[in-house]
Order: sequence, then structure tokens, then C-alpha cells
Amino acid sequence: MTPEEKQLFDLAKDHLKDAYAPYSHFHVAAALVTDQGEIFTGVNIENSSFGLTNCAERTAMFGWVNSGRPGKIKTLLIIGNTDRPISPCGACRQVMSELMARDAKVILPDSQGDFAEYMVEQLLPYQFTEKDIEDGANK
Amino acid sequence: MTPEEKQLFDLAKDHLKDAYAPYSHFHVAAALVTDQGEIFTGVNIENSSFGLTNCAERTAMFGWVNSGRPGKIKTLLIIGNTDRPISPCGACRQVMSELMARDAKVILPDSQGDFAEYMVEQLLPYQFTEKDIEDGANK
Amino acid sequence: MTPEEKQLFDLAKDHLKDAYAPYSHFHVAAALVTDQGEIFTGVNIENSSFGLTNCAERTAMFGWVNSGRPGKIKTLLIIGNTDRPISPCGACRQVMSELMARDAKVILPDSQGDFAEYMVEQLLPYQFTEKDIEDGANK
Amino acid sequence: MTPEEKQLFDLAKDHLKDAYAPYSHFHVAAALVTDQGEIFTGVNIENSSFGLTNCAERTAMFGWVNSGRPGKIKTLLIIGNTDRPISPCGACRQVMSELMARDAKVILPDSQGDFAEYMVEQLLPYQFTEKDIEDGANK
Repeated sequence: MTPEEKQLFDLAKDHLKDAYAPYSHFHVAAALVTDQGEIFTGVNIENSSFGLTNCAERTAMFGWVNSGRPGKIKTLLIIGNTDRPISPCGACRQVMSELMARDAKVILPDSQGDFAEYMVEQLLPYQFTEKDIEDGANK
Repeated sequence: MTPEEKQLFDLAKDHLKDAYAPYSHFHVAAALVTDQGEIFTGVNIENSSFGLTNCAERTAMFGWVNSGRPGKIKTLLIIGNTDRPISPCGACRQVMSELMARDAKVILPDSQGDFAEYMVEQLLPYQFTEKDIEDGANK
Repeated sequence: MTPEEKQLFDLAKDHLKDAYAPYSHFHVAAALVTDQGEIFTGVNIENSSFGLTNCAERTAMFGWVNSGRPGKIKTLLIIGNTDRPISPCGACRQVMSELMARDAKVILPDSQGDFAEYMVEQLLPYQFTEKDIEDGANK
Repeated sequence: MTPEEKQLFDLAKDHLKDAYAPYSHFHVAAALVTDQGEIFTGVNIENSSFGLTNCAERTAMFGWVNSGRPGKIKTLLIIGNTDRPISPCGACRQVMSELMARDAKVILPDSQGDFAEYMVEQLLPYQFTEKDIEDGANK
């Protein structure tokens, strides 16, 4: 990892304690950095009605939107309270594809700091886009 | 409104510009204050796959969770780019019922600052709770 | 209950076994009848990413839409693998408010057949509607 | 396409009219077949609160679960009221990964019947699984 990515790793690892996961006890944290160096973090937030649960990745991206979308998201890192790396769910990949560039970086470290690294377009290949909506709506 | 509630109103109204609503062009902003005086804001964040959309109320509550849930949420105010007041959707009411006290206040102002005011339990009466899950899971 | 409502109760109770709930072990079933006497059932369907979970009530209503929305939904009954009655979550109330009339009936029985009964508008008072979107989008 | 896949295509194309899409006017239909030859269809179902929208793919898969999960889902076909093929969103891919085998087939035809074809694991590579939850929850 670069020093900046190592900073995301340290922030996310420390942030795991803030997850609200009373139903699964599965804690996840995320941290992202923009091309301007601004950092946003996220944790998963569960609900007794499971379908209202929000993942850590989305919490981080929503924080970025809520701050006025400064710059562009360059790198998003995700970590769980697990030994192995975890991978973003399909819903988060869909939100990444809406808010991040196709070549933005997603880093998936394990608890020791070893990691896998992907581009957004690798995580959601052949993706559904805004153009599909317009194509349909114009008919 | 109290001076503190007026502050939420001004923050939310100004925050409407930050909504990410390219599909509906319907902008919503929210602002909440805790019993310790900390403020969190939110905007709605849409997605080309509509089901991944996040409402302004949830963005604000998720920001509070992400900051370590300081204090308790005392008041949540919601405003849209509409003349009339708008009301939280059922999904947001469910998240309120998970993260806010039953007697926490929800303020729904119109664009002029006139407003309706409810307690969380009025917005989601006869609510589904964690105890229902435990009751089922123990069988 | 009317004989028709008793039929919904029996169908839903028997349907609990079909729930897909490997994460919570909380089974929920629903059954609805239209004003033309057509019946649709539903179970909850969970996901390892909790936010993709679908509730029993929505499964039933989606089944009705998928059949071409025959008639109007008259009554929706919900039951869990619990002794006590359970109540629909906010997300399901929002979908009810979209697809059912405000005075449609929602029946919440316990395992013995005792029940509470509400109209949709009691479960989601002061509701968010399509008109709010149009009001915003026209600006 | 095989004759069975052509049957899914014809069913889905005819089913587009049943979509409930008053907000986007973007109609999507899906049809799946199990290894026992049972067929389930789906349409997209929108909501004034966009986040409660359900996609066609999920409506079809939920119908299969609701029928007691007979057999295994062999093939899922998706079509929109567009000339070009459309691709499932990340949320639907997550539900596919929960309910379908990794080598189950997903067919994406255009309006003329030309099509692309993928396995589930190609649409959601490096996927999040139930094992990740257990790994975290056991700590």
C-alpha cells in the first residue's frame, strides 16, 4: 500500500468499533480518499428489519456526497472484523458504479494488511447505467 | 421553532443544493441535533437502479452513527425543494425507530418555515421491534 | 375474522415453512386477498448482505403486481413464527401505501388467531406521496 | 437460444406491459426456469420513495422462493423496453448470488432476440458470502 492507503487501512481498522451491528455482530468499516486528499469513513448500520441495513461502503460514499462531492473518489478500502479480506456486496458495487469512476480503486485488506485490489469496473462488469433508463423512458 | 430548530431549518434549506437527484430532480435535505448539541445533516442520494437510493433522513442518521453515536438524537428536521412540507417515507421511519427514541421530535417545515411536528412513535405506530426477532429466533 | 380472513390466516400459517431466513431464523408469512377474491402469499427472503432482504408482505404484494394487478388489494394478513402478533416494518408500510388503498385492511394475528386490525393509513400516517415528487420536479 | 430460452424470451417480452414504473417509465421483465422446467416471471415495481423499488429479476427470484424453491434456478433472462440489452443492477446480482448457483446462466437479449450470456459468477466476481458473516460473528 501507499502511505495514503496505509492511512485508510489504519482509520478503517480503528473504526470497526463504531459499527452498529446488533443482529449479525459482523462489523465492517470503510475509508475512502478523494483525488484532493479528503477522507471519508463508514461503518455498517443494521436494522431489526434487515432490508433497511446500510453497508459500511455506502455510509462512506454517502458521507462524501453529503459533503458536496468534493473532488473524485480515488480509492475505497473495506475491512471487516474477520481474518480474511471481505468483498463488497452487489448493492455497494452498484452505488460505487454510480458515484465512482470505472477505474477507481477498491482495496480489500485482511486483518494483517495483506490485500487484494480491484477497479470498480472489475467488481461490476457489464454494468447497468443511466443510459439504459433514458433509452427506455424515451420510448 | 426554538433557536436551535431554526438553525436546523437554515442548515437544511441551504443543504438542498447538495442533493444528488439526477433522476427525480426532487431534492431533500435533513438536519438533526443531539441532546449534546451536535448537528448532522443529510441529502437524498439517488441511483440509476432506483432501489439503491438513500433518503436525506437516513444520510443524516447514518452520519450520526458513523461518528460513534454521540449523545441521543433529539430532533430531526426534513425539508424538500417544494412549497409544502414533505413527510418521511416508511423506510426512513423504520430507521428512525431503530436509532431514535420513541419520543424524539421530527419537524416537517414548508419552504416558509411553517411546520408540522411529530414524535417518532406517531410516525411509525404499532412498530416492529428487535423483540419480535428474538421471539422468533428462540423457537 | 371473516371466513375469507380465516382462509388467509390458515394459508399464511402453513406458508411459514417456506420462508428463507438462514440468518435470523425469524420466519414471516403474509397472505392478501383482492376485491375479486384472488389470493397472493409471501414469505421473507433474507440475504447474506442484510440490506437485500425482502419481507413477506412485499413478496405478497409484488406477486400481485406481477400478475397484472388484478382488482384491488382488500386485506393483507401477516404472521410470524412467534406467539405474539408482529407488525409490518416501515419499508413494507411504504409499499402498502403505494399499492393499496388508504382504507385497505391489515390484519396482524398471533399464533392462536387473536388479532389486531388496522387500515393502511393508520400504519403510515402523514404519508409521503407521489405528489411530493411532482411538486419538487416541477421547480 | 434453446427452445426453452426462446420461451423465456417470449414470456418476458410480453410481460413488459405489467411493469409498475410510473416514475421512470422504464419497463423491465424477467423470466427464469428451474432444472425441473418450472417457470417464474417478474417485472420491476417502483415506489414514490425510490429506495423501495424492486427490480424485475428480484420479483422473479422471489416468486420462486415463495413457491418453496422447487428445483434449482437454471437460467434467468432479463429484457427492458429498450432496443439494447440491459444488464442486472448490483443489488439483483447480490440476490442471484444468494439464490442461484455460481454457474447458473443469465441471458440478456436485445429487443430483436440477439443476446449476451453470462454465468452468475461473472456478474458478481469476488463475491461476499455467508462465510464472511460467520467468520465475523464467531469472534
